[in-house]
Amino acid sequence: MEELKQRIVADGTVLDENVLKVDSFLTHQVDAKLMQSIGQHLADRFADRGITKVVTVESSGIAPAVFTGLALDIPVIFARKQKSLTLNEELLTANVYSFTKKVANDISISRKFLGAEDRVLIVDDFLANGQASLGLVELCRQAGAEVSAIGIVIEKTFQGGRKLLEDEGLEVVSLARISSLENNQVNFLNEA
Amino acid sequence: MEELKQRIVADGTVLDENVLKVDSFLTHQVDAKLMQSIGQHLADRFADRGITKVVTVESSGIAPAVFTGLALDIPVIFARKQKSLTLNEELLTANVYSFTKKVANDISISRKFLGAEDRVLIVDDFLANGQASLGLVELCRQAGAEVSAIGIVIEKTFQGGRKLLEDEGLEVVSLARISSLENNQVNFLNEA
Repeated sequence: MEELKQRIVADGTVLDENVLKVDSFLTHQVDAKLMQSIGQHLADRFADRGITKVVTVESSGIAPAVFTGLALDIPVIFARKQKSLTLNEELLTANVYSFTKKVANDISISRKFLGAEDRVLIVDDFLANGQASLGLVELCRQAGAEVSAIGIVIEKTFQGGRKLLEDEGLEVVSLARISSLENNQVNFLNEA
Repeated sequence: MEELKQRIVADGTVLDENVLKVDSFLTHQVDAKLMQSIGQHLADRFADRGITKVVTVESSGIAPAVFTGLALDIPVIFARKQKSLTLNEELLTANVYSFTKKVANDISISRKFLGAEDRVLIVDDFLANGQASLGLVELCRQAGAEVSAIGIVIEKTFQGGRKLLEDEGLEVVSLARISSLENNQVNFLNEA
């Protein structure tokens, strides 16, 4: 997605060879128009799959996910990282390790919102080591739902997440694929 | 907003006389179309104010806020409840006490995204005791930004938040105003 790549080059900050900061349009300040384009792209890509739910995890996944859900005209569920007092019924829960934050956290979805009849499109802001996406896949599988595909805004292809997901038989589509952040430079994967 | 009130009556769950659960369309599963209507309503209401930024707090505020930002064609900032490794620059920080969760948490916004030139519309999912909104007001004031108004999806008018905000000279607009949750019943404020 050319518009996204241009925005990453213009406004992203390479913190080190593993970390790209995009807090001016995605992870803290949000460009809603760009999110709308992202949601439309993902929806167009998966329009023929009979998808019934978009699933993401709070917080940076929410904006791209809600626009995907809007374009597909289906509900969006965001998994919670903390259990809330008003979210105390039966939960699907998976443990997710964050390489960036070096902590493991549970993520949860209320069981009543996902079932065996659902075909899920997982949407997330980043694919790096794949742990967050794998956690969402696990929640869907606990519910008996089928994961139809995984739509990612920004993939860091050098961190191995895609392989873990593909080894699980999952299709991954990323709108921007970054092959390296070395020398303070964003390099995108050359795709045919 | 009639569509919202009908949805609260149809799909909200009264947990006790203080807590309304709307996790099927706002706080966990999200109805993106309804969020779009909410965003459009808030944008229409404040279109003539010269607002430059929408500010909310993760996570349930993000969906209504991004659609408000889209309709106003301005950036959206969501305050963070936890400091992230990639968000380590100068922060505006306020402490917010949650009566629901009975804990105090810092919320933060990166200083670079808010300044004295900004006129802010604060958007949040709930107004109850007003602590979250007051925290967002404090962040804006630390930045020297002007808070133009506060747009709320669901207000519980019996919990006093509005008075705290109005005492600060702030205008509060809520799309659904609930006057009581007693006897397992959602009662809306009769408005002229």
